[in-house]
Amino acid sequence: MYQVDLNCDMGESFGAYRIGNDEAILPYITSVNIACGFHAGDPATMKKTVRRALDHEVAIGAHPGLPDLQGFGRRNMAISPQEAYEYVVYQIGALHAFVRAEGGVMQHVKPHGALYNMAAVDGKLAEGIAEAVYRVNPELILVGLAGSQLIEMGKKAGLRVKSEVFADRTYQQDGTLTSRSQPDALITDEEVAASQVIRMVKEGKVMTRQAKDIDIAAETICIHGDGPHALAFARRIRASLEAAGIVVQPMGG
Amino acid sequence: MYQVDLNCDMGESFGAYRIGNDEAILPYITSVNIACGFHAGDPATMKKTVRRALDHEVAIGAHPGLPDLQGFGRRNMAISPQEAYEYVVYQIGALHAFVRAEGGVMQHVKPHGALYNMAAVDGKLAEGIAEAVYRVNPELILVGLAGSQLIEMGKKAGLRVKSEVFADRTYQQDGTLTSRSQPDALITDEEVAASQVIRMVKEGKVMTRQAKDIDIAAETICIHGDGPHALAFARRIRASLEAAGIVVQPMGG
Amino acid sequence: MYQVDLNCDMGESFGAYRIGNDEAILPYITSVNIACGFHAGDPATMKKTVRRALDHEVAIGAHPGLPDLQGFGRRNMAISPQEAYEYVVYQIGALHAFVRAEGGVMQHVKPHGALYNMAAVDGKLAEGIAEAVYRVNPELILVGLAGSQLIEMGKKAGLRVKSEVFADRTYQQDGTLTSRSQPDALITDEEVAASQVIRMVKEGKVMTRQAKDIDIAAETICIHGDGPHALAFARRIRASLEAAGIVVQPMGG
Amino acid sequence: MYQVDLNCDMGESFGAYRIGNDEAILPYITSVNIACGFHAGDPATMKKTVRRALDHEVAIGAHPGLPDLQGFGRRNMAISPQEAYEYVVYQIGALHAFVRAEGGVMQHVKPHGALYNMAAVDGKLAEGIAEAVYRVNPELILVGLAGSQLIEMGKKAGLRVKSEVFADRTYQQDGTLTSRSQPDALITDEEVAASQVIRMVKEGKVMTRQAKDIDIAAETICIHGDGPHALAFARRIRASLEAAGIVVQPMGG
Repeated sequence: MYQVDLNCDMGESFGAYRIGNDEAILPYITSVNIACGFHAGDPATMKKTVRRALDHEVAIGAHPGLPDLQGFGRRNMAISPQEAYEYVVYQIGALHAFVRAEGGVMQHVKPHGALYNMAAVDGKLAEGIAEAVYRVNPELILVGLAGSQLIEMGKKAGLRVKSEVFADRTYQQDGTLTSRSQPDALITDEEVAASQVIRMVKEGKVMTRQAKDIDIAAETICIHGDGPHALAFARRIRASLEAAGIVVQPMGG
Repeated sequence: MYQVDLNCDMGESFGAYRIGNDEAILPYITSVNIACGFHAGDPATMKKTVRRALDHEVAIGAHPGLPDLQGFGRRNMAISPQEAYEYVVYQIGALHAFVRAEGGVMQHVKPHGALYNMAAVDGKLAEGIAEAVYRVNPELILVGLAGSQLIEMGKKAGLRVKSEVFADRTYQQDGTLTSRSQPDALITDEEVAASQVIRMVKEGKVMTRQAKDIDIAAETICIHGDGPHALAFARRIRASLEAAGIVVQPMGG
Repeated sequence: MYQVDLNCDMGESFGAYRIGNDEAILPYITSVNIACGFHAGDPATMKKTVRRALDHEVAIGAHPGLPDLQGFGRRNMAISPQEAYEYVVYQIGALHAFVRAEGGVMQHVKPHGALYNMAAVDGKLAEGIAEAVYRVNPELILVGLAGSQLIEMGKKAGLRVKSEVFADRTYQQDGTLTSRSQPDALITDEEVAASQVIRMVKEGKVMTRQAKDIDIAAETICIHGDGPHALAFARRIRASLEAAGIVVQPMGG
Repeated sequence: MYQVDLNCDMGESFGAYRIGNDEAILPYITSVNIACGFHAGDPATMKKTVRRALDHEVAIGAHPGLPDLQGFGRRNMAISPQEAYEYVVYQIGALHAFVRAEGGVMQHVKPHGALYNMAAVDGKLAEGIAEAVYRVNPELILVGLAGSQLIEMGKKAGLRVKSEVFADRTYQQDGTLTSRSQPDALITDEEVAASQVIRMVKEGKVMTRQAKDIDIAAETICIHGDGPHALAFARRIRASLEAAGIVVQPMGG
């Protein structure tokens, strides 16, 4: 039997500003990564998003980012591993309080944007993040890019880890994502995207831009919650996975 | 036997900015209120302050404030009870994660500055705050101005509450503090301050500016951690209380 | 000959967050109030909005607000007149630099949200704002609610002032707007709104909720740039004014 | 005749937080770089610092930084040249308004911290900054590290530029400052520091850590305003320069 988790970043609105189509997409995913107020999100949005996730029986994770609201946490910042530790502890805690207040349980932590990308290749930073998760709650699952330093350091810290793959992104020979600055970074054909993820889950392989297969662990698939096609894409991926006999369920089991 | 708690606001530094004399004053207090990043404090400061408090065996509380770093949380803002709820849940959670990561336990919550003052007189706001504390953790103690709406609403929510008095402030006939805009708001004579708190603890009374006694519950005494005389004042109050046969211990018991 | 200015708040996007339909509405207005980064807006948005306004030959004004991005500057804050002065100087300057860099000239200043509302009734705050505008550039026009303290204090400071009216809001007997918490605060019928503004411009009168006429100075009309009907409303008001023989032109002349 | 400017970063306080010893050091310098609210400073501090500089007849410059108050603008951030342009326009404008309100004139612009360091080696970023200064006001002087890309791009943009040297830092063979992570980055002996700057001004040379002389343009010397020895150091450097027959005057002439 094959299984996989389907996750989506949500709770990214801020004050009067709205981003995403959370309510519509929640029925199609099994885990949600909720922004914690540094790169996006605010206390009101966190409360609402936690409530919605629980109502939809979607497993909840913290989505900590860099303190850069203006850049949506997408700009690399030269923070130290110690600062990464502190930022992640803080943000997990803030979200955890809303989860507890609403009567739920937190399942996982997945860093956002530049923090996620930097931690994929910088072992020290990844170590700081993994230690933060472990010290706040060793039961939490740490989600990172398949094959990344974050996955390595999570294991080393004694955490359960889950390898993330992307439905609509292409891969390089070294297992990294093709940079968004490249023309072929995104897969826009839903059918191609669906085939790629099904193969990643069933065979543990992905065809790279260099036209060679590489091994990849696909335990949770990231789909995007923003943009005009997000909802249709979520529906399609979910249906394709199930049609292929893959059980879609929260990464926590 | 008489007993009282001695509390102080700490962890108010931010980035490169330093406020307070935390390390020096910690030996003289029994509870610490740690800023949570909204009006003061940042993740690095929170981590360090929690660690220090545990090392000194001082009981830890969250000190949530308004989202107004520039105003140090001292300017009233027209937030709704719902927003107060959300801000307090968020900040308690953030601090709690550091306490947990360092192996400690959180004892109490005391709102800061304008949030504290507004919640003293606005029952709806106080209710939002009390509900936040209760839903995050019903074991937490809520600290408010003696005789305030916050104390009332904390009880109503089912929380343990502790009434706070001030060593160096004068009182009005209605139990409120004399406004800092008045010339006689502060007690600068250490002996007078010490006598006032000893009487509040032992007799449950304080002489107001109008020269009449009123009843007051003194379960925890706030001393200030900033300013040139803070350390000497902390030492003096502590010594005076003990000399008067009052046991100084954390409010949690 | 009758004339009036048509103004709209714009440049309210922030980072990845989008608000408003600026590009579509610009052709219908004659003055634009651009957010300056405190309650909304950011440097990139300011640059782009200034450029667009110049391209559309719409006169540019600064739209300074309270330092409350999370509340979109709509929550009253207890700032001092001195702080109001400083916040307004800062924000006018920031916008002015973009106007200068793009080769334009700034026409006016209109405070935003809670700052506008507080300055309508608080003379001291209004004085701080007026002084800020005057000291940065005495040629700037200060826009305030018709009949407000801001208009009074602007005149007193030696500034040209322009009285603002609202197309889609109802008025009270004392000349203030009906609070948004009231059911009849908004005029949703475009025809009624158009009639109201035409009468305000031509007769200087408006019928209040108490069914009595009051005098009102209508030198600039505020229309909203956000919401599903904003564009249609802008078109309609503009067409109605011109059909009524009113010249729609920038308040600066 | 030899001449040089002596500059210092000031106005770095924020809200209740105090940094620096501005009032005491102002008598010893000829140019001041005032923080503009991104990495440090706030509107109240900017107003006060501009006033003080004018009272001391010290020439005023803007000191724009990265939007990173928590990191004091010292952490590299991956901003685009376009973002650098926008951030610098915004901050120059904000400070300029205070200078104008107080009746002064702005002399120069010097980027702060990580923005300064990144612009020293990244030509595209330097170009964005230089263009920002030029478009806001082509009369402004751009200050950059001697031999840096910022100086190059400033010239190319058509600006007057001034090369900055540091009194208390050591230099590498390539003209860059020894990294603060190295043990010999700082010169703590005041006499050595004074000799170094006098030689840089008079001979245009500095002895590097590699014990070889290199050419260096010393048009303005940066001294630090914070730390226990800042005042004594300022006094000493100023006196040493004058004793060596060097005229200390604002870079603007």
